[in-house]
Amino acid sequence: MRKEATILCPANNGARYELYSPTAMPKAAGFLWNKKMMIQITCRGYATAQFMQPEPAKYAHAPNIEAKTFMQPEQNYYAHHPGRFVYVKDLESGHLFSAPYEPVRATADRFVFSAGKSDVAWAVEQDGIRVEMVMGLPIHDVAELWTIKVTNISGRPRRLSVTPYFPIGYMSWMNQSAEWNPELIGVVASSVTPYQKAAEYFKNKYLKDKTYFLCETPPDSWEANQQAFEGEGGLHNPSALQGPQLGGGDARYETPTAAVQYRITLDADEEREYRFMFGPAYDEAEISSMRSRYLSKVAFVRTAGEYAAYMERGGGCLRIETPDKDLDNFVNNWLPRQVYYHGDVNRLTTDPQTRNFLQDNMGMNYINPEVARKAFITAVSQQEANGSMPDGILLAEGAELKFINQIPHTDHCVWLPVTLDVYLAETGDYGLLKEHVRTANGDNFTVFERFCRAMDWLLKLRDERGLSYIAQGDWCDPMNMVGYKGKGVSGWLTLATAYALNLWAGVCDHEGMPDLAKRYREGAAECNAAVNKHLWDGDWFARGITDDNVVFGIKKDPEGRIWLNPQTWAILSGAASQGQIERILPQVDSHLGTPYGVLMFAPPFTKMREDIGRVTQKAIGSAENGAVYNHAGVFYIYSLYKLGGQQDRAYSLLRQLLPGPSEADYLQRGQLPIYIPNYYRGAWREFPRTAGRSSQLFNTGTVSWAYRCFIEGLCGLRGEDDGLTICPQLPSSWDAIKVMRTFRGATFQLDIRRADVKEVTVKHGDTVLPKPRITNIRAGETYQLTVLVPQCQ
Amino acid sequence: MRKEATILCPANNGARYELYSPTAMPKAAGFLWNKKMMIQITCRGYATAQFMQPEPAKYAHAPNIEAKTFMQPEQNYYAHHPGRFVYVKDLESGHLFSAPYEPVRATADRFVFSAGKSDVAWAVEQDGIRVEMVMGLPIHDVAELWTIKVTNISGRPRRLSVTPYFPIGYMSWMNQSAEWNPELIGVVASSVTPYQKAAEYFKNKYLKDKTYFLCETPPDSWEANQQAFEGEGGLHNPSALQGPQLGGGDARYETPTAAVQYRITLDADEEREYRFMFGPAYDEAEISSMRSRYLSKVAFVRTAGEYAAYMERGGGCLRIETPDKDLDNFVNNWLPRQVYYHGDVNRLTTDPQTRNFLQDNMGMNYINPEVARKAFITAVSQQEANGSMPDGILLAEGAELKFINQIPHTDHCVWLPVTLDVYLAETGDYGLLKEHVRTANGDNFTVFERFCRAMDWLLKLRDERGLSYIAQGDWCDPMNMVGYKGKGVSGWLTLATAYALNLWAGVCDHEGMPDLAKRYREGAAECNAAVNKHLWDGDWFARGITDDNVVFGIKKDPEGRIWLNPQTWAILSGAASQGQIERILPQVDSHLGTPYGVLMFAPPFTKMREDIGRVTQKAIGSAENGAVYNHAGVFYIYSLYKLGGQQDRAYSLLRQLLPGPSEADYLQRGQLPIYIPNYYRGAWREFPRTAGRSSQLFNTGTVSWAYRCFIEGLCGLRGEDDGLTICPQLPSSWDAIKVMRTFRGATFQLDIRRADVKEVTVKHGDTVLPKPRITNIRAGETYQLTVLVPQCQ
Repeated sequence: MRKEATILCPANNGARYELYSPTAMPKAAGFLWNKKMMIQITCRGYATAQFMQPEPAKYAHAPNIEAKTFMQPEQNYYAHHPGRFVYVKDLESGHLFSAPYEPVRATADRFVFSAGKSDVAWAVEQDGIRVEMVMGLPIHDVAELWTIKVTNISGRPRRLSVTPYFPIGYMSWMNQSAEWNPELIGVVASSVTPYQKAAEYFKNKYLKDKTYFLCETPPDSWEANQQAFEGEGGLHNPSALQGPQLGGGDARYETPTAAVQYRITLDADEEREYRFMFGPAYDEAEISSMRSRYLSKVAFVRTAGEYAAYMERGGGCLRIETPDKDLDNFVNNWLPRQVYYHGDVNRLTTDPQTRNFLQDNMGMNYINPEVARKAFITAVSQQEANGSMPDGILLAEGAELKFINQIPHTDHCVWLPVTLDVYLAETGDYGLLKEHVRTANGDNFTVFERFCRAMDWLLKLRDERGLSYIAQGDWCDPMNMVGYKGKGVSGWLTLATAYALNLWAGVCDHEGMPDLAKRYREGAAECNAAVNKHLWDGDWFARGITDDNVVFGIKKDPEGRIWLNPQTWAILSGAASQGQIERILPQVDSHLGTPYGVLMFAPPFTKMREDIGRVTQKAIGSAENGAVYNHAGVFYIYSLYKLGGQQDRAYSLLRQLLPGPSEADYLQRGQLPIYIPNYYRGAWREFPRTAGRSSQLFNTGTVSWAYRCFIEGLCGLRGEDDGLTICPQLPSSWDAIKVMRTFRGATFQLDIRRADVKEVTVKHGDTVLPKPRITNIRAGETYQLTVLVPQCQ
Repeated sequence: MRKEATILCPANNGARYELYSPTAMPKAAGFLWNKKMMIQITCRGYATAQFMQPEPAKYAHAPNIEAKTFMQPEQNYYAHHPGRFVYVKDLESGHLFSAPYEPVRATADRFVFSAGKSDVAWAVEQDGIRVEMVMGLPIHDVAELWTIKVTNISGRPRRLSVTPYFPIGYMSWMNQSAEWNPELIGVVASSVTPYQKAAEYFKNKYLKDKTYFLCETPPDSWEANQQAFEGEGGLHNPSALQGPQLGGGDARYETPTAAVQYRITLDADEEREYRFMFGPAYDEAEISSMRSRYLSKVAFVRTAGEYAAYMERGGGCLRIETPDKDLDNFVNNWLPRQVYYHGDVNRLTTDPQTRNFLQDNMGMNYINPEVARKAFITAVSQQEANGSMPDGILLAEGAELKFINQIPHTDHCVWLPVTLDVYLAETGDYGLLKEHVRTANGDNFTVFERFCRAMDWLLKLRDERGLSYIAQGDWCDPMNMVGYKGKGVSGWLTLATAYALNLWAGVCDHEGMPDLAKRYREGAAECNAAVNKHLWDGDWFARGITDDNVVFGIKKDPEGRIWLNPQTWAILSGAASQGQIERILPQVDSHLGTPYGVLMFAPPFTKMREDIGRVTQKAIGSAENGAVYNHAGVFYIYSLYKLGGQQDRAYSLLRQLLPGPSEADYLQRGQLPIYIPNYYRGAWREFPRTAGRSSQLFNTGTVSWAYRCFIEGLCGLRGEDDGLTICPQLPSSWDAIKVMRTFRGATFQLDIRRADVKEVTVKHGDTVLPKPRITNIRAGETYQLTVLVPQCQ
């Protein structure tokens, strides 16, 4: 395998990552999504794809029965994992290899894996043959569009068999089969989604229980039976490839597969290009229609163009040019893409957790505020009669709360004002607050009233000390036994309540309701006072108090001694005085700092602490590991920007949040720099081997906050009712940056540089603005601004 | 690989099967169980083990998250499936192979797989090295006891690495790890069973969430991390075996494994023997105690002896010596073992279906009637207040009805008298009927009264035509949409009700309750009349009538035209007249007969019929396939024996039920002749390639009825209140058989032969008995009987 100067390179203006070795970076993966599906595919060819109907479903399965569960971290691959492969065999020498890499794992002369924003591609050269594979998606349909090109680069004529192999797996214990369909020119596998209750039959009746693999060009032979394909040879050397052609078998309650074979002769430099489609369908008519819609060269080109335009619409509102080129690349290309993914498809779930739904749409404000507006209305239309918010927001007819959403959490109301803050800042659309929203229980209130009711519920849900009940969990991450008896309280939630109340009081002021504003500000002050009275531990805030009145997250705790969230939110809520903040920050640095970000808590637990519960057993790392939980970490960064004067600390933590493009960073984190994962493993002191490892999960509330930190914090470009304020917080090592920001239809081009000024000074053309703030913004206009920021001390 | 004369041989007096090729017979498997666990292990080394705590759990897992579901048919194996393997590598030549066969799949010079009643063993020779592996179980603990012996048969000194490899797999998404424990001398893997609700924590708290692999002899090196063991080499050539020793790694939220390596030098003919233990545990103290209890040569020998004695106690009540030696072997060794398994551990479930629980204990009457007696009391202690029986019998504290047991079925009461029949016949213990049994709802009735209430409920649960409602399903196999609206009826259930009522009327007579007897006989007659009126289709009985009044299982149905169960039970219930029976039998032969048994129905469905429902989608075969569902088939055989004069048809069907020891039979059925599976694939005409294939599931109500057919039918040795009747039904090709039958503590040795008699004539010594019936049986005595049966016509 030819080693490039580095084995991982940004390419194509940073919107693409190229990798040159599947063995050094086995988990390197790209991901694509459209309105109905998501696919994560590794450089080796393993793939995890899900689509909505309306619950998440699969069209390619493991060879055994997989549990139906939420998306798991640190996905494990093994020989028979679903994937997309092409075997190439020299019919004279018998030499066999597979592209991309699995299942044969033969070393290539050249290997390029290329994860782009709109496609995932490979070029693999071995034995004088080049195989190029490209996968794309259409926008509105569930289908993978594959181009496979084989080129003879050996300089002499060659006879080859080329065998795309797309395993379909164990579809169902109830009924599964597969066979070649000559009219459709492909393998069609059929199954029945298992059910027990008669009522479920009607629910399942129209599920897409078929999987198809279609060939544009009819192959010479095929195999639909996994066992027959593999034989005794094993996947690294399938028996079916030893004969003159594939066996043409079917699967009858056997594991289906799709393998098709082309036997070709290629002259020197001759190439052959094939196109395939892979996906689920309800019936053969649908497969036929998908074929005619997509399976041709012309349609592939058209669809790729449409998909690229679709991605462009998620380009976000910020372009930066800084001394940190890797950062620029991530912020300009990949971060808005990940924010867009969250807001566009809601993590492919029909019951997103309320806090996630709100935060994902907070990010969507920077991309398409109309979507976010609808999301607020959807969310409050599911408010309970008592003002509380449900644990998840149901997005599809017949959807139900699943998994962790069946466990009562007490924090969802907090996120309403916290996320609305960005909607109002980006749009100034206070009209949303006047919309009337009726819930299923029949009550009818304006959005403003609904927010008030949520705030009142938060105020009420506190004990005699003024601390917020935690029940079976609050956010990040459920400690399910602190308050399951109904008495335990959460320090974080009390602080978050204060922060939410303060934000909402500001909106009340704007809406001309000073009495309400006062009431909520007083509530916030009460919360902050209660936390200071009961939870200040001398150098930091405790995490909570159990049902049995045990304060935890304090100095004398040997494990779980200090928690990040209460410190962060004490800064945001105003609970922490300047003096307290000065004590807190160095403690966070020394207890929670690691090279991969800030730990959620430390020291890690080594055993169950029964009065706290599940968090000590959680899968983030293992029980021993407090993780770098990025969603908590990014709030800390946000609080530092809000605090001000912390730009170096904030920048350095932001850098840790982003997976770097260097080989060394990949080797520790195990992830390409195309998204922020929900966690990196912690326990950096205890288990350095695994510390920093990425969860590989790109579903995380982290991203909208990270984007917000860049926009509002580092670049300091925050919207207000009537304009845009400008207050950059450049790290001290930077002298200047350039920023392009779109806002309310206008474009702002900012040249931000240090100068001998006492405070931020903005020039529009030659005019120095009286304040660092632009008002009367006209949509369509471009504003060229020079922003002078003070020198560092 | 040396091919023996046949590749599959019964050995060791038939209580052991030896197989000489893993490639011809890849699914060949043995199974062992004890009071708390079950393990099915294939000739290649793949294993599926479950234990009770109290719900079924695993200690070795697939490498991905497996669905927690009921035992699945036609289990699928793949490279990373759980298994028990030993790699052997020549340190000079580098030659690598694995025993038994997987994962390397290198061809052995000699291969013997040996499935016995008390152990499963292998001998594999390759490259001048013999590897012998033996697995046994203790009786009361969950642990596998492994002996691995390596012998140098190459005639020259050898340097080898011997590496037992026991993958542990994906234990939990919540928390998993593994490491070497030097005190315990083994790998200890830890996990936390995932849960969401706080209450589940307390339920899961004492689960055995650790898996251990212990070595009697300390190895030279070890590896606890699956990924590190396998590396890029893949399981067929693990990277870890290419170094001078295993890496000594741990697993931290990574997939655990247990691999240990011995580097040894063997002189010619020298051997080395190792012992290992593999299983689950709660904590290290338990592992330590298991180690000291079992992990030594002395303990292995002692435990093997105890286990063999345990199996002996399940030897059953019948020994036959017939012209059919394969049949003798199955009936004398394997069939009672399978019956014993069912009665001993209730299929390793905490909520056996009521009908299964009763029938499994029906079989147990022939092995240990005391167990069956308790089972009847347990069952009726869970009777509902209205007389109906629940869908499952809960056997453990905290157990709940799961899977199909949550769907209401209407047939459970039927099985009470049907199975009690054998208890009374075997024991004459009518005292059971007088026991008082209190249920959780507080009512208190005798067993007799409870049976009456169940019969009354059956009588009541009928429509205005006198046909029994089917609700969402009856037995074999739920047709969940016939009557889900509350109106559909089951022909089979109406007939089964009649059969049950008639049987119970007999008991009422015995108990001196002629009025009750009359009432139930009249009810039975009503049922039979209703079926004859509404469901006789001219040549057979229909299966039922849907909610919308569509009769099905009739001549004009293109699919599902004729069903076996209504025909069988019309014979048993007395609904079918002699004339009807003469019409029915040839129709069953021609529509339902196949070389592998009688189909449950025919023609197979090719698509969903919505007014019948789930059966057309069931996993038995695929939707297209009506299966040879042995539990239905064996009732047909039983009905033929009850009918009399059908001994040839019955014998031939019994033979089809048993997997044969021939290679040809194995190749079609895919199963060693050590148990009867729950089904063989049907669709013999439509899909001959897969027809006859075994489900590989040894949980089936078939076995107690098969045993009953041999005892009561073929041998004709049925108990009665005060004695044993003798009425053999030998197939016409047999002139004589010898039978040993134990009954109420006495032993009967019967010499059964054809003679010139008009009816069965029994001689005790020189005395010809007045009737073919022994009374006044004295426990402890041996009766030598000569039984003369009429010549065939």
